[in-house]
Amino acid sequence: MGDAPARLGVGMVGYSFMGAAHSQAWRTAPRFFDLPLRPSMTALAGRNRDNVTVAADKLGWDSVETDWRTLLTRDDVDLIDICTPGDTHAEIAIAALDAGKHVLCEKPLANSVAEAEEMVAAAERAAARGVLSMVGFTYRRVPAIQLARQLVADGRIGTVRHVRAQYLQDWLSDASAPLSWRMDKDKAGSGALGDIGAHIIDLTQFITGESVTGVSGMLETFVSERPVATEFAGLAGKGGDEVGPVTVDDAACFLARMSGGGVGVFEATRFAQGRKNAIRIEINGSRGSVAFDFEDMNVLHFFDAEEPAATAGFRRIVVTEADHAYIASWWPPGHALGYEHAFTHQVVDLVGAVAAGEQPAPSFADGLAVQKVLDAVERSAEKGAWLDV
Amino acid sequence: MGDAPARLGVGMVGYSFMGAAHSQAWRTAPRFFDLPLRPSMTALAGRNRDNVTVAADKLGWDSVETDWRTLLTRDDVDLIDICTPGDTHAEIAIAALDAGKHVLCEKPLANSVAEAEEMVAAAERAAARGVLSMVGFTYRRVPAIQLARQLVADGRIGTVRHVRAQYLQDWLSDASAPLSWRMDKDKAGSGALGDIGAHIIDLTQFITGESVTGVSGMLETFVSERPVATEFAGLAGKGGDEVGPVTVDDAACFLARMSGGGVGVFEATRFAQGRKNAIRIEINGSRGSVAFDFEDMNVLHFFDAEEPAATAGFRRIVVTEADHAYIASWWPPGHALGYEHAFTHQVVDLVGAVAAGEQPAPSFADGLAVQKVLDAVERSAEKGAWLDV
Amino acid sequence: MGDAPARLGVGMVGYSFMGAAHSQAWRTAPRFFDLPLRPSMTALAGRNRDNVTVAADKLGWDSVETDWRTLLTRDDVDLIDICTPGDTHAEIAIAALDAGKHVLCEKPLANSVAEAEEMVAAAERAAARGVLSMVGFTYRRVPAIQLARQLVADGRIGTVRHVRAQYLQDWLSDASAPLSWRMDKDKAGSGALGDIGAHIIDLTQFITGESVTGVSGMLETFVSERPVATEFAGLAGKGGDEVGPVTVDDAACFLARMSGGGVGVFEATRFAQGRKNAIRIEINGSRGSVAFDFEDMNVLHFFDAEEPAATAGFRRIVVTEADHAYIASWWPPGHALGYEHAFTHQVVDLVGAVAAGEQPAPSFADGLAVQKVLDAVERSAEKGAWLDV
Amino acid sequence: MGDAPARLGVGMVGYSFMGAAHSQAWRTAPRFFDLPLRPSMTALAGRNRDNVTVAADKLGWDSVETDWRTLLTRDDVDLIDICTPGDTHAEIAIAALDAGKHVLCEKPLANSVAEAEEMVAAAERAAARGVLSMVGFTYRRVPAIQLARQLVADGRIGTVRHVRAQYLQDWLSDASAPLSWRMDKDKAGSGALGDIGAHIIDLTQFITGESVTGVSGMLETFVSERPVATEFAGLAGKGGDEVGPVTVDDAACFLARMSGGGVGVFEATRFAQGRKNAIRIEINGSRGSVAFDFEDMNVLHFFDAEEPAATAGFRRIVVTEADHAYIASWWPPGHALGYEHAFTHQVVDLVGAVAAGEQPAPSFADGLAVQKVLDAVERSAEKGAWLDV
Repeated sequence: MGDAPARLGVGMVGYSFMGAAHSQAWRTAPRFFDLPLRPSMTALAGRNRDNVTVAADKLGWDSVETDWRTLLTRDDVDLIDICTPGDTHAEIAIAALDAGKHVLCEKPLANSVAEAEEMVAAAERAAARGVLSMVGFTYRRVPAIQLARQLVADGRIGTVRHVRAQYLQDWLSDASAPLSWRMDKDKAGSGALGDIGAHIIDLTQFITGESVTGVSGMLETFVSERPVATEFAGLAGKGGDEVGPVTVDDAACFLARMSGGGVGVFEATRFAQGRKNAIRIEINGSRGSVAFDFEDMNVLHFFDAEEPAATAGFRRIVVTEADHAYIASWWPPGHALGYEHAFTHQVVDLVGAVAAGEQPAPSFADGLAVQKVLDAVERSAEKGAWLDV
Repeated sequence: MGDAPARLGVGMVGYSFMGAAHSQAWRTAPRFFDLPLRPSMTALAGRNRDNVTVAADKLGWDSVETDWRTLLTRDDVDLIDICTPGDTHAEIAIAALDAGKHVLCEKPLANSVAEAEEMVAAAERAAARGVLSMVGFTYRRVPAIQLARQLVADGRIGTVRHVRAQYLQDWLSDASAPLSWRMDKDKAGSGALGDIGAHIIDLTQFITGESVTGVSGMLETFVSERPVATEFAGLAGKGGDEVGPVTVDDAACFLARMSGGGVGVFEATRFAQGRKNAIRIEINGSRGSVAFDFEDMNVLHFFDAEEPAATAGFRRIVVTEADHAYIASWWPPGHALGYEHAFTHQVVDLVGAVAAGEQPAPSFADGLAVQKVLDAVERSAEKGAWLDV
Repeated sequence: MGDAPARLGVGMVGYSFMGAAHSQAWRTAPRFFDLPLRPSMTALAGRNRDNVTVAADKLGWDSVETDWRTLLTRDDVDLIDICTPGDTHAEIAIAALDAGKHVLCEKPLANSVAEAEEMVAAAERAAARGVLSMVGFTYRRVPAIQLARQLVADGRIGTVRHVRAQYLQDWLSDASAPLSWRMDKDKAGSGALGDIGAHIIDLTQFITGESVTGVSGMLETFVSERPVATEFAGLAGKGGDEVGPVTVDDAACFLARMSGGGVGVFEATRFAQGRKNAIRIEINGSRGSVAFDFEDMNVLHFFDAEEPAATAGFRRIVVTEADHAYIASWWPPGHALGYEHAFTHQVVDLVGAVAAGEQPAPSFADGLAVQKVLDAVERSAEKGAWLDV
Repeated sequence: MGDAPARLGVGMVGYSFMGAAHSQAWRTAPRFFDLPLRPSMTALAGRNRDNVTVAADKLGWDSVETDWRTLLTRDDVDLIDICTPGDTHAEIAIAALDAGKHVLCEKPLANSVAEAEEMVAAAERAAARGVLSMVGFTYRRVPAIQLARQLVADGRIGTVRHVRAQYLQDWLSDASAPLSWRMDKDKAGSGALGDIGAHIIDLTQFITGESVTGVSGMLETFVSERPVATEFAGLAGKGGDEVGPVTVDDAACFLARMSGGGVGVFEATRFAQGRKNAIRIEINGSRGSVAFDFEDMNVLHFFDAEEPAATAGFRRIVVTEADHAYIASWWPPGHALGYEHAFTHQVVDLVGAVAAGEQPAPSFADGLAVQKVLDAVERSAEKGAWLDV
């Protein structure tokens, strides 16, 4: 068997929705994949000792800290996994990298381009010392998305002409859904735009290998005041009588120009009744098309225009074959993966990169690229005019 | 332009649902296709003079007869189109053929094997004199079905292993839906079995080029008494207080052996709530599969197992390309055909065969082949045992 | 039976794609629907006598004219049906209306706002004299679209928040597809924008009952030169060695503001590989959503947010029930309608309006409203800024 | 917080495909659900010490045994989880129950009715002493299946008339796919019938709350000889030159009568090219229908015939709402679960039952009920006649 792999001590900050997903990934990755390092769920940080203790017990972390800074001083922690709201990313990530800890940072990378640029600078400083960083655009690691990227890279759809990308949710359609930090500009930076729009921007840039070069944006807040949540009640809990302002966008739409000459239409919203987490990406090229919908996440649709017209059609590829990315470590064909599997794949790739001393993707620079698009969309929406990214 | 095509005088018997569909086909075929004969809608026959006169005016027939036998004596009638219930098919068809008239007969060919055999004998006698006959298994002429048949014939799915065929309707689910001739064994021969089961048997034999050789059947009548319709009220009208017996099956299911070694599962029912006219045929072969659902009638799904596993998937072929059967005469790609187009195609093929003096398909012999399967299913269901066809 | 309905003499100008569709509608409408007037296919006009004669014979018109102006002088012509390219609409329609003929004019109403405004003025003058006019936004008459409109009007989706409309074709994806009048700005006015984008603008305004009030547009021509067609070769025939310029857009995308406070994202393209005629409209409201795709044209998807969460879901309504618009005159449930049925419905509605002396919808004013949006999109795309409509 | 839950020591036998799935479930259940007992992955048993040691390390088991009997003697093991081929189930399960260990046994319960009956007897003896047993029909615990069962139980589809159940795989379509224990009658009992047919029988009985009372079966072996696998190569690995006989069915089809008066059509095959793990169940009742396809496992289709015809349609319910079974412990709406989540739910329910001292479902008696149907299908297929179960 050879030597057992060396240990990789992980310290995580935050333990809400993303914390639960990341924990499952850290627990699961070594059980299905042969990792070059053995992740250890060393410590969980949170401000409230009681809460963080309960969470650590539930999620499987060996110890707790009430100040994330303490994680940076622990010798048994090699990597910091940041699962907090966006307003804290820059401070934690930069400090961690400067302290010589590898960093996995949830998306969006930051709440502003300026912060993101500082983070990229920190990542570059750190990389020079062999300290690595990655931003958590997890959906890249859905096998169907990997296949889409591969088909585009292999030239199977030719030159990209159209990108059609939507991220549709409906949990704010009800005007009585309560306020959360995700509707507070100070915490979240933006609303649907940064929270979910960021994903479809990254996915587009990842699948096409191109970048968004110009945008015309439109932001809308349909419900400007909401009840203040009386206690934490999940994404769509109920609030009380007190109301507070929504300071972010409910929906964000933008047109785009791609670096390869194609055009794009993007839409992110929390007001699409009946669409729960519909991440839809369709890319039309000169030789074919790919189409994905997260509501059917194990499937990629592929149209090959090189086929004779009589038998051409979108192929519904069930992306659960051993030849597909990550699948050989899971189940036989047709046995679906779920939402959290992409987080496990993220851990696999990150641990592989750390072991190899190589820059993992998506890098902080990739995160900054997304941030710049978000920023251009916001400024464009304000001006009512096209802007270069 | 050459000479104008010669005239083909058509006399139709019956003017209900099928009569309306056939009339639209006779009217439409010459407007979209270049026919070698010019059909003339010469005469419509029905027992009630007032009703048949109204119908002829509405449907576009030039004259009426109150006795179908008169049609056989008219020199301006070359072809008899039989759109009446199954109990009258044998008498009309045999008389017409013996009178030297070509015949198009609605399905099922007859209400019994014995009748169907007499019809086949009459057809053979007639054919020897150049008088032709065809049975109306119209769904063969849906372009997606034609493509399925072509793919199988071309070996694209290899040896047939599985046939999975369903014809699902729901118009009798409601126990208060009234009696009609379709629930009367004397008129209809059988219920779901002959009315709609006949279609999926024919489609299966057509697409595979094989025959059903043995069956194990099950018939069921869920609702044994229904209100007598106070007047004609369409397929799912309402009845009055008087009730009468349902003397046919509401649903028919059977297992089958195919002549090429494959196995089949068939189901025909009028009790599948929510399925309106769902004709579903899936055929799995050693090299691939085809799948069709009439609820999406312009589409064929094709799986090619010769493709690499990573990009294999059912192709959703939108069967509206100029390369597909019949389509070049209709609209550009993506412009859907509907239910009655298959009747127009039936006219096109029939007129072509008559002009060429060639046997059209499906022949009465094909209709008899279906009848024998229906008969074997009924007898098998009664005995509770497998029977050869 | 009462008296036979009076005659309505129709003269049609043009006999290409739209001419064939309109002819089928004029032939078919009286066979399935009880019309208050009996349409007569009186005369077909076209410049080349030989060609128009062949076409009239094929399509079923009783006579021909080589100058459309002559139609206006014929007493046996009551209505002019204009199926020519957009650059001729204004002249023909205005002359016809001024001559006292009712007018059905294909979309887009005109090639410019100025022309459309003159047409509206002519329509108003004519209406004062009981002479009526309609523009051919046929897709409104697909039964699933009618149901969508009804559900919105009934408040079933609440306040409209999102419109997501696409019209996707792929017949120009191949750079060797030849030039046609549809790629010539002088003839067509614009490319994908006016040809197919016009449909989704009209459908959106029809379904929502709202208007587009502001836009930010983007136009793109991916292939700027194409082979000149050596002869007419259908929408996607092959050309020769000579090339000519494409002077219209290949694709048009725009963001929109709706009069009710919602936002819209529109896209029209002939470069979406694998999408043949995909008209997709999804509308999300505060209480529900409707979604339509012409690739499955007999279906409407409806999400009712008033249902309990545990059983809420998009309903796939097969719009072939007797309760649905137009269906009672056709077939039993589940028997699909096709592309041309909407043209038949257009005739039904137009004839009904003429008989009643009432303004049919969509009016020339509705056509002008679409034209203004098209115009605003073009100007916005040029300026790179939002514009009011 | 109260006291920490008591420990439940688990010993597992077998560590192949099912062993990996069960391990993930034991690891994951306590991380997402509040369990009344804390499962401990105490010991893994397998015959080869090296292999079982590697597996235990990989899958997270604390110790190993090379004889499963030793597990029964360990005080720290409270529950035996049997993940071995069917020929060993009876011996292990009976011994374990008699030794006072709770048992979770993979399906099918046994390879014969006689064995299954002995197991039920052992389960009853054990239950009298508070020792519990469960059979692993995991698919019951897919949330969409739970919802189907709930809707039927609530009367939402009325009286069951049709069951249409298929389990379609294609991994043996290729005649060169090698032999495995799953094609060996001595190990597996039967082929597609028991391996996958068992699931759709159990699911049908579970969802409807009815039992299969009579069957007419057909078994087929399409490929009677296959290469002997040179080494373990997964479900569809490649074999060498040596060949051996396939002694089980490749496909099994049967008609059925249900205890409530409905009829059923069942099909299980490993030869449906392009269908990877398609478990499809549709149930039509007098008031509605439910339909499920594991290829889209987070979705249930529900047709409510009580809706007005104009707005009735199959609802595509995305079964990821907090109101759906198990979901509140996972992710927000629209975030899909995958194949292995049902195993986690199985652990949750089993641990809950053990803690409560209540019989978990499905019981060994439920497993025996399935076994009797399998047995009747085999005997019916041999006789060519209907048989009561």
